[in-house]
Amino acid sequence: MAREIAEQPEVIRRLLDRFDDNVARVAGVLPEALAGTVLVARGSSDNAAVFGRYLIEQTSGRPTGLGAPSLFTRYHQPTDYRGHLAVALSQSGVTPEIVEVCRQMGRAGARTVAITNDGASALAQVADVVLELGAGPEVAVPATKTVMAEFVALLAVAGAFGALPFPRSSLDSIADAVRLMVEDPAPASGLAASWTDVDHVLVTARGSLHAVALEAALKIKEAAQMPAEAISGADLRHGPLAAVHRHDRVLVLDGGGPLSADVGDLTTRLADLGADVATCSERESADLPLPPGLIDPLSAFPALVRVQQLALALAHTRGFDPDLPPGLTKVTPTR
Amino acid sequence: MAREIAEQPEVIRRLLDRFDDNVARVAGVLPEALAGTVLVARGSSDNAAVFGRYLIEQTSGRPTGLGAPSLFTRYHQPTDYRGHLAVALSQSGVTPEIVEVCRQMGRAGARTVAITNDGASALAQVADVVLELGAGPEVAVPATKTVMAEFVALLAVAGAFGALPFPRSSLDSIADAVRLMVEDPAPASGLAASWTDVDHVLVTARGSLHAVALEAALKIKEAAQMPAEAISGADLRHGPLAAVHRHDRVLVLDGGGPLSADVGDLTTRLADLGADVATCSERESADLPLPPGLIDPLSAFPALVRVQQLALALAHTRGFDPDLPPGLTKVTPTR
Repeated sequence: MAREIAEQPEVIRRLLDRFDDNVARVAGVLPEALAGTVLVARGSSDNAAVFGRYLIEQTSGRPTGLGAPSLFTRYHQPTDYRGHLAVALSQSGVTPEIVEVCRQMGRAGARTVAITNDGASALAQVADVVLELGAGPEVAVPATKTVMAEFVALLAVAGAFGALPFPRSSLDSIADAVRLMVEDPAPASGLAASWTDVDHVLVTARGSLHAVALEAALKIKEAAQMPAEAISGADLRHGPLAAVHRHDRVLVLDGGGPLSADVGDLTTRLADLGADVATCSERESADLPLPPGLIDPLSAFPALVRVQQLALALAHTRGFDPDLPPGLTKVTPTR
Repeated sequence: MAREIAEQPEVIRRLLDRFDDNVARVAGVLPEALAGTVLVARGSSDNAAVFGRYLIEQTSGRPTGLGAPSLFTRYHQPTDYRGHLAVALSQSGVTPEIVEVCRQMGRAGARTVAITNDGASALAQVADVVLELGAGPEVAVPATKTVMAEFVALLAVAGAFGALPFPRSSLDSIADAVRLMVEDPAPASGLAASWTDVDHVLVTARGSLHAVALEAALKIKEAAQMPAEAISGADLRHGPLAAVHRHDRVLVLDGGGPLSADVGDLTTRLADLGADVATCSERESADLPLPPGLIDPLSAFPALVRVQQLALALAHTRGFDPDLPPGLTKVTPTR
């Protein structure tokens, strides 16, 4: 896991070299009159899908959402997907339900894009266009570099619809920002060392960074075998705040941009409830500092490294092998 | 909360009396060429939206998903919602972000349905059609009867597109099944009494019952101030299983129907990991038994009562006032 985290700047660089090509290939299969976009995935790929969902709705100007695989694989409903783009994500490309849903959505009229690390996989074979992650073999069960690559690939899908919500030149800053984080694991180790007595973590964010919060909770569960839950800052106010207690550990991700003020208010509220709040933001005082000047959605990339480092460090402080969590395998054969 | 749980059979009966009228009113505003449906809500209304999402995709035959309010209220993106039905849910009808998103989706071309307990609320005023819950005043902060009513109202929205996935006559069984549960609080009290040492609960289900799992976790957080997380049975296999430990308390909801076999497999898997698994199903041996013969999606209704009863009983065993959780108010003014 540590080695795969370190490979990420190079993975991003390679994928960005193919960025314009990937944009053009997705643009070539878009429906003429777009009705909407649906993303389909499970696990950490589903967290990447949440990131893509915000961006694609912004660039496509049409409703975008997450598909429910069981509607196809279990309820066998005959949904008409004409006019829709379907984006199916699977790192291995072999999760049966994702392959099956992508195939069925295509038969039902959707144009389909596969995002996978294996261009020869079953998923790649059923889609109209394949964006190959090119991340190289990933061995650790908790996916890191392939998730990062999925986030980057989704920028290309969003870019196929129209201008991204940041200057084209900012793309180059992603690999640099991620490199800065990779070379600086000390903040995550420090935070993990202060959490030795923790048995439950809450992670919260809003907007694009919510995808990173979901990934933080999943990585902590997988690598550190610790219950961790991600709740969006808005949803947290609608009930779950009642279960936040004095000394509970909460990680707040602030990606800058239009949601930053609300996340700041929430941080104060959590502290008032007595929670032990750690922050990940561009502020120098943050427990997990991000490079200055990058705002949502670009700040999601360095933030992703920070939460990977935290999960890894928590595994180490608890004496667990982060690469081989109990009860899991690298490919999860859900149907 | 206890009184409002007890009122639910009557609330359902009143709403079902207006079922055909509600179906006709929604049918009257459906877009001519439907592109898709988007549901918008927060908190427990968002859990009801998850229930509606499965049903509406089945009856409408077009992609259905959950909207992200921040895209409207924070990112200010100009999405084109022509051809889409937007369903906005808010029990109070005054949550600012839900009112604002419903108004903006309507301006962007969506036909809009408001589901609310206050037919004179701001939300009711911005929608093309209002389905009033008629649940009467709800005082306890953890919503129960209004959530149940939202589930019922969503049956009418789904029914406006075409035949529901069960016979029309089955509708009458809902109130009866809920009454059976309301009159039998002992199983929930018994389970809560056996969980006195619990500090974290995992709830899992698949399909329509996933909405009930989400509501279980939210109600336990609100009423019993206990960390509780809902994870779909499929997503659980993609990582979170690593954080399930010996003696962890897991509640598995099995609503029967096409997902039952998979939920059964998962229950075995959780027990193999050493988790302390409680079940809610139509089996007589279940910790929280459901009336026999009702399958997904109808089993969601009695299951909703079972998880409300469990949250209430956990609040009592822990000495908390379920009606007034710390840090919450009845109306949550997120923007």
